[in-house]
Amino acid sequence: MVPEPLPAALPRTELTRHRRLREQGSLERADLDAILDAGFVCHLGVVVEGRPLVVPTVFGRDRRQLYLHGSVASRSLAGGTPVCVTVTHVDGLVLARSVFEHGVNYRSAMIHGEARKVTDPEEKLAGLRRLTEQATPGQWQYARRPNRKELAATTLLALSLEEASVKIRTGPPDDGDSDDAALGVWAGTLPLASAWGAPVTDPQLPPGIPVPGHIARREGTRHG
Amino acid sequence: MVPEPLPAALPRTELTRHRRLREQGSLERADLDAILDAGFVCHLGVVVEGRPLVVPTVFGRDRRQLYLHGSVASRSLAGGTPVCVTVTHVDGLVLARSVFEHGVNYRSAMIHGEARKVTDPEEKLAGLRRLTEQATPGQWQYARRPNRKELAATTLLALSLEEASVKIRTGPPDDGDSDDAALGVWAGTLPLASAWGAPVTDPQLPPGIPVPGHIARREGTRHG
Repeated sequence: MVPEPLPAALPRTELTRHRRLREQGSLERADLDAILDAGFVCHLGVVVEGRPLVVPTVFGRDRRQLYLHGSVASRSLAGGTPVCVTVTHVDGLVLARSVFEHGVNYRSAMIHGEARKVTDPEEKLAGLRRLTEQATPGQWQYARRPNRKELAATTLLALSLEEASVKIRTGPPDDGDSDDAALGVWAGTLPLASAWGAPVTDPQLPPGIPVPGHIARREGTRHG
Repeated sequence: MVPEPLPAALPRTELTRHRRLREQGSLERADLDAILDAGFVCHLGVVVEGRPLVVPTVFGRDRRQLYLHGSVASRSLAGGTPVCVTVTHVDGLVLARSVFEHGVNYRSAMIHGEARKVTDPEEKLAGLRRLTEQATPGQWQYARRPNRKELAATTLLALSLEEASVKIRTGPPDDGDSDDAALGVWAGTLPLASAWGAPVTDPQLPPGIPVPGHIARREGTRHG
């Protein structure tokens, strides 16, 4: 079955149009994909008895859906409950001449929709594979996969990627041609980046089991 | 005026008690302080017309309050609107023998309350100082501080730190003494850490203005 191609532009809806800082908004699906592919932790927002709850959790994805690991928020997710999932990468500080122009370079994606509990065992297994591979490519093949009992004990949520928006800020501060340019104050950016460290072997592991290549080779590489 | 000492334990309320993964919960104020002090970006959750909205924004703090930069969410924040602010540091992947026991090492703080728009110019200036210094210690003294017009154009929110909770996961996977220990699968953690890069000078800056020490000396240091 050949999947229907997705439009390159994300739909502009009441929730995704950018009211503020319009210049930083993007409705390109490629930007959304890049931001999601660069991370594995999101912040899931739900409404519980009229109050917001924002919970960090891990995610995976396919072309059309986000898969989220069930969390403290799941208890509140009946069918059709609106959620907001935000994935953010902080790339550095924007240090301007004036405090007012200070900011952050970042990439952020926000997905709106109604989370659906995945109940079909086959879909659940496929979703958990996406989730595992999002964090650690190669790990689904390497570690012991969930058995029927574990699968039943896992809560997995699915969320359509249909309604999403992106905000990106890059580059130097914006006050380079303002009156403040004459102040003699240094201005620029201070980059921030995440990187994987050296694998730490579980002290309980018997000797002689090497770190597998798909994990070992990440050491020193950038994340985000 | 000597401020009233804060109790070392955070109050256990309906919102802060840990229903799930109780072992990872903390109600120690010192843990909350450490997690907040290690970051400058939070995820702010609000309810807009019954739907959750989760927005990344910068924050600062004093002993009793969080200060948040006004964001797209501010338009919805009338007095007494409940918000949830979550600050998360991801410390690495927990790679167990079985996929089911996989997880993330992290530190996360969640603050519940009603955000208040700061309108008093003196409090606003003090709050903006906290916010600026949280991201870049020393920058408030160095850059041009907000004038009256800029202060009026800035939206600052304050949120009490009274109702908060913390979740922390550290250490190796939990299946070292399970049946899976015999599988011969490598297990351990893959640490993830953020570090500051080399300052990037604004191309519009005239030559001869050095990077100030409070910025230059962060290069190569850990963040988070």
